[in-house]
Amino acid sequence: MTDTTTRRRARSGGGAARRAERGAVSFETARFITRNIPDYEVLGEEALDIIEANAETILEEVGVNFVDNPGALQRWRDAGADVRGERVHIPRGLARKLCATAPSQFTQAARNPERAVEVGGRNLVLAPIYGPPFVRDSVGGRRYATMADFEKFVKLGYMSKWLHHSGGTVCEPTDIAVNKRHLDMLRAHMTLSDKPFMGSVTDPSRARDSVEMCEILFGKEFVAQNTVMTSLININSPLTFDDVMMGALEVYAEAGQACIISPFIVGGAMAPVSIAGTLTQVLAEVLAGVAYSQLVRPGAPVIFGAFVSSIDMNSGAPTFGTPEASHITYGAGQLARRLGLPFRSAGSFCGSKLPDAQAAYETANSLNMGLLSGVNFMLHSCGWLEGGLVASFEKFVMDADQLGTLHQLARGVDMSEDAQAMDAIREVGPGGHYLGCAHTQANFKTAFWKTELFDYKPFETWEDEGARDTQTLAAIRVEKLLASYQAPALDPAIAEALDDYVARKKDAEPDAFL
Amino acid sequence: MTDTTTRRRARSGGGAARRAERGAVSFETARFITRNIPDYEVLGEEALDIIEANAETILEEVGVNFVDNPGALQRWRDAGADVRGERVHIPRGLARKLCATAPSQFTQAARNPERAVEVGGRNLVLAPIYGPPFVRDSVGGRRYATMADFEKFVKLGYMSKWLHHSGGTVCEPTDIAVNKRHLDMLRAHMTLSDKPFMGSVTDPSRARDSVEMCEILFGKEFVAQNTVMTSLININSPLTFDDVMMGALEVYAEAGQACIISPFIVGGAMAPVSIAGTLTQVLAEVLAGVAYSQLVRPGAPVIFGAFVSSIDMNSGAPTFGTPEASHITYGAGQLARRLGLPFRSAGSFCGSKLPDAQAAYETANSLNMGLLSGVNFMLHSCGWLEGGLVASFEKFVMDADQLGTLHQLARGVDMSEDAQAMDAIREVGPGGHYLGCAHTQANFKTAFWKTELFDYKPFETWEDEGARDTQTLAAIRVEKLLASYQAPALDPAIAEALDDYVARKKDAEPDAFL
Repeated sequence: MTDTTTRRRARSGGGAARRAERGAVSFETARFITRNIPDYEVLGEEALDIIEANAETILEEVGVNFVDNPGALQRWRDAGADVRGERVHIPRGLARKLCATAPSQFTQAARNPERAVEVGGRNLVLAPIYGPPFVRDSVGGRRYATMADFEKFVKLGYMSKWLHHSGGTVCEPTDIAVNKRHLDMLRAHMTLSDKPFMGSVTDPSRARDSVEMCEILFGKEFVAQNTVMTSLININSPLTFDDVMMGALEVYAEAGQACIISPFIVGGAMAPVSIAGTLTQVLAEVLAGVAYSQLVRPGAPVIFGAFVSSIDMNSGAPTFGTPEASHITYGAGQLARRLGLPFRSAGSFCGSKLPDAQAAYETANSLNMGLLSGVNFMLHSCGWLEGGLVASFEKFVMDADQLGTLHQLARGVDMSEDAQAMDAIREVGPGGHYLGCAHTQANFKTAFWKTELFDYKPFETWEDEGARDTQTLAAIRVEKLLASYQAPALDPAIAEALDDYVARKKDAEPDAFL
Repeated sequence: MTDTTTRRRARSGGGAARRAERGAVSFETARFITRNIPDYEVLGEEALDIIEANAETILEEVGVNFVDNPGALQRWRDAGADVRGERVHIPRGLARKLCATAPSQFTQAARNPERAVEVGGRNLVLAPIYGPPFVRDSVGGRRYATMADFEKFVKLGYMSKWLHHSGGTVCEPTDIAVNKRHLDMLRAHMTLSDKPFMGSVTDPSRARDSVEMCEILFGKEFVAQNTVMTSLININSPLTFDDVMMGALEVYAEAGQACIISPFIVGGAMAPVSIAGTLTQVLAEVLAGVAYSQLVRPGAPVIFGAFVSSIDMNSGAPTFGTPEASHITYGAGQLARRLGLPFRSAGSFCGSKLPDAQAAYETANSLNMGLLSGVNFMLHSCGWLEGGLVASFEKFVMDADQLGTLHQLARGVDMSEDAQAMDAIREVGPGGHYLGCAHTQANFKTAFWKTELFDYKPFETWEDEGARDTQTLAAIRVEKLLASYQAPALDPAIAEALDDYVARKKDAEPDAFL
């Protein structure tokens, strides 16, 4: 396929890669998606105008809280906002004006230069699940995640053809101290994969550690001049920006590193129980957050984020893959494009506890909607289970296989003369069949998306092979991939420097588990 | 919900219903979907023009075969086509001109007048799976379908809130003679459900039987003046119209009854292995088929059908829920709208042998694409398994639950002042929560789509209840629904007349099993 990069060994490029060892095996990774299909737009101009006007009203009248952050309040005062206590009232139009310095598209470098990604425009970058404290597989069941699990997920991500990004906290390594695990997680992304990755946001000091580790991997000068991390800054919806997340944002923005600025909303709990109301609040929050990033450093790369689920009003549980989430995501995509910002939303979302049919319906709903809504950066695009509490090994490879369909959908319809196939239709004629015709012979290998997982065999063969369901096939694929894993080449001096840095940092303070 | 019709008893209307018994319990059925959202259009004007021009070239240069049907050839000759042997060459523009008399929208009546459906325009009517010789459930496994299975599916369809149509051959009752099973199937739809249904197409005489049974159910005059059946006429792709299907089409068109005229295509086998080529052939075939229906009776209601799957080039198996099928369906929807015809495509398609994750990914891909592509009549919208070889009881209720999401998506975004929720955002403010606010209290019951199947319970509760997967929950739901089934009221005289008709017809000829 034309959009796939096949590599046999690491190529030169970037300080790290230039010194990389030769001869290591690598795995095929598709280029990030560039859409050749239109976005789906569920809102008309008038609706968009109303939401934008309402968001400005919220910012001015209700305001947003910047908590425990006198520096932020001062920045807002200097920019012309009306600050009362920790409440920042932003005059109409000010936030949008400040957002104008944020780039509409940016490149995130990877230590393998061929795996750099373009975030924004018509592009879609796929990254794995982020944040779950638990993992699950069919052998071990559901259990707290460990660093060993984390490394397995990074390896699976590295070997997944349709995944462009290694992600961040693919699961929480709960066996490592909270104040030190970011070091191990970053080292795993840097050494076990050569795809781009995310930095730590759980404390400003950990964001600084992330930048310093990147300086070891990429070289200090390279980091100063390039975006090498895209990190996740959640807004404490409704309308609250806490000091930890803002502290991390400040570190990254000052270092020219990218952040997703993302309301985290369970509709009906953290936002109104309506699509229009939720979109209004999402826009107000993103406007304030992105504007703040530009107060820290004009031009800092940021992404318009929207993590939105609906709620089951019986149990209070968040629900995923629902029509309400789809409408909010379609609408948020339109709002992001009008702001000229890259857009993050959607993922392999589901509420199911197992990688079963519920999980797959919900996930497919969300993945399809993510592609059509114009998402530019899809975090959680594989492995998500049980409302994000669990990273599932089997679901990781199931979802990662489905991500191939998004690549093929995004290519649009080939209208070349060969694709029009008039000669084939003339050749075959009424009552014939196309299996052997010249056009089919020339095109069948690349014409259709191919699964690496699903079973299309005849019933009898499938039964003879044990009548295996998708989860069973996925478990086999997980084992097969992990058994064939080989680390991408990395200059041993860099690996050693990373080890030294991690050891030194770990020695510098006692373990903390809170 | 505003688009749901709740009934406690049969209301008057139509000859049959007027005489219906009072007091019978009924089940809630949603009104057919009327889209308040845009269609997704993957092809530009230029691409559509090319496909339309190429389709005319096919019809003129290559032509189509009408097999064993001298009457059809004579009709084509009279209309100005160039007929050579059984090959009909249709001059450019003739087929499209003939299609102009077909209505862009029609009403299919049901014996319960509230369950009449509007086919065409912005509407979407959902009907169950059609045609499988096997059934499957988690207790009995995969086995040949029987009339008892058939009746169960009709009952489930009747009780499914989001299903508007009872369908036709929901499974093949293989325990009944081939030449008689249409009688039992039609009687089941007529007596066990009050939703609209389909007629038999496996022989012209069986189509005539279908019309006669409708005359008993609705009254002769009503049938003469109303469309009471929508039946499925498959084109023998490529470009071949066989005498059995055309014979049934002739019967229905002459009787003013509706037909779906539908190429049946596994891409790469019955059509070129390219999207543009397949769309060209689909359009040529539908143009010829619809034009022929209008030669039989101008104004006969017909639907632009497109059954399209891709192919696994390794095994030759048809594949479902693939990106290629999506593109073809999006494109075919655009072509149907340009022809001004109702459009049939999509469904709960999957290749999986089990109602597992593969089945659900593939199905969700197809259902979502069906909604956005502007489908007006979705056959196979629930219950499809194993490439259509199997009707699954569990998947029937799983898919039927997901059909609720299509209803909610189609409603679009409410931009009323209440939905804008500015008062709620002002009331809650930064750091608050919406669970108890006035707006949430007023709206939570109807704001979000609700599943009747999926599990959103906390992990511990779910585990205590047996850690059930979707298939297990679905099996319970099937049993529960069937246990609570009560037939819709029907005038005993009509039921008796139907029984007499079926008995008389069965006695008139020996059983045939071929």
